[in-house]
Amino acid sequence: MKIVNFSISGKNKFGIVKEAGIIDVSAIYGNRYPSLKAFLEHEDVSSLRKIASAAADYAINEVEFLPVIDNPTKIICVGMNYSEKRVEFNEQNPEPTLFVRFADSQTGHLSYVNKPAESREFDYEGELAVIIGKKCSHVSEQDALSHVAGYSCYMDGSARDWQHTWYTAGKNWPRTGAFGPYLTCRDEIPDPHNLQIRTFLNSREVQCDNTKNMIHKIPYLISYISTFTPLSAGDVIITGSPGGVGKKRTPPLFLKEGDCIEVEIEGLGRLSNHIKESFAA
Amino acid sequence: MKIVNFSISGKNKFGIVKEAGIIDVSAIYGNRYPSLKAFLEHEDVSSLRKIASAAADYAINEVEFLPVIDNPTKIICVGMNYSEKRVEFNEQNPEPTLFVRFADSQTGHLSYVNKPAESREFDYEGELAVIIGKKCSHVSEQDALSHVAGYSCYMDGSARDWQHTWYTAGKNWPRTGAFGPYLTCRDEIPDPHNLQIRTFLNSREVQCDNTKNMIHKIPYLISYISTFTPLSAGDVIITGSPGGVGKKRTPPLFLKEGDCIEVEIEGLGRLSNHIKESFAA
Repeated sequence: MKIVNFSISGKNKFGIVKEAGIIDVSAIYGNRYPSLKAFLEHEDVSSLRKIASAAADYAINEVEFLPVIDNPTKIICVGMNYSEKRVEFNEQNPEPTLFVRFADSQTGHLSYVNKPAESREFDYEGELAVIIGKKCSHVSEQDALSHVAGYSCYMDGSARDWQHTWYTAGKNWPRTGAFGPYLTCRDEIPDPHNLQIRTFLNSREVQCDNTKNMIHKIPYLISYISTFTPLSAGDVIITGSPGGVGKKRTPPLFLKEGDCIEVEIEGLGRLSNHIKESFAA
Repeated sequence: MKIVNFSISGKNKFGIVKEAGIIDVSAIYGNRYPSLKAFLEHEDVSSLRKIASAAADYAINEVEFLPVIDNPTKIICVGMNYSEKRVEFNEQNPEPTLFVRFADSQTGHLSYVNKPAESREFDYEGELAVIIGKKCSHVSEQDALSHVAGYSCYMDGSARDWQHTWYTAGKNWPRTGAFGPYLTCRDEIPDPHNLQIRTFLNSREVQCDNTKNMIHKIPYLISYISTFTPLSAGDVIITGSPGGVGKKRTPPLFLKEGDCIEVEIEGLGRLSNHIKESFAA
């Protein structure tokens, strides 16, 4: 199953995506759950299977896509997690490089990503996002994947000239983290470390790798992170970007107004956004 | 005025601290605001002046102190912001060093701070905390202080062996960020850059400096941060620690079970916590 967080007629909802359209799960649950996060806090995604054959309520093109989780309590981002990227940035430290994104830095599929007018180096990073399904703490690597609700694509838009080695100011501008199009349930992805991951800028492939080349794998990341901070339903771990980012090209290739940036991961769909530039915050 | 966030008989409340005790402001507002953050989201702290002469409802020693803001949307921490500390850590980058603490890493005055059993280098940092009073974005340095509700003390407990240059894993263990005892309103602190700041470990002074020695001053920090991320009522900026931390002493001086750690800032009170060690997360 693929689960989408969306808005229609000013109402936030979530639903199951099928070829014929979207099943409005919020309505089935009496609008108790206005978002996928609210649902995950009380139910298991697998419980949706029983309604997955219902008729679609909305056409896909009539809804506005929201970030898969629109208000995560924690978004933990992993930097320097593909070997090609580590070489590009000369990163030597073997420990996971972790930084934080605030929930209000996100946007959904087909919306615009804002290029901050204050940055001269706004760069793309295509990444695999892991969505946590239930509370956990001190998880072992063996149990880690059982706490995952599913996976999605993420475009971790990065103001390189504000990034430094602590990341915070480069990674938190409003509308710079695109998250979608939808969550693909864990049971549809038997091995999250065998997926092709590609980024396209104006249809030109600019990043191409396979998630098998992640240095710190998802079970290790969940175990490591849940050692120092508890995770809960709807928390998001963004697992890092392959090499090929704009900052390390000759000449550099940064995002500008009107560009189309897309992240496609095998089995998880293709996240597509266009770029606008403004001073918005 | 000094405003305290507290719990009594299992109920979260906030109130005005006076010598005679605490005025229960939550009750005066019909329990509409169970915390200082909830109040700041709707009212200005200066509006409390009209009730500041009411009789105290509770003795100070009968309440449990909570973090001044127990569930901030954003806690932004500034590293390497005193010259002595920068020398100790050989930090050269002139830009503000910023990292994030999650809300669930905090604890209040007189509670215990948890030394993570997984860390062999759990260190103290005494800091001045700035509490934002209202939404703001792209604030100028001139206007910055008008968005501040008040100030408090912070003990930014740091697992140095998990810290790295990106800080996240060193700064987010549960119960490692002590915040209190209370908020002192901005109008009582005409110059936040002329305050003595001291840390005591088992009554021995281990850090001593003056907030005039901060490298990036509070108006600049608010302006810089609000450029890349909007701030809102109850957000917290922790402005960095003076030199003298345990990691850089010979021999090193780390926190252990039974220690008493205190942070005192002129006009803002003395935050006091004892250390317990556990695997809690």
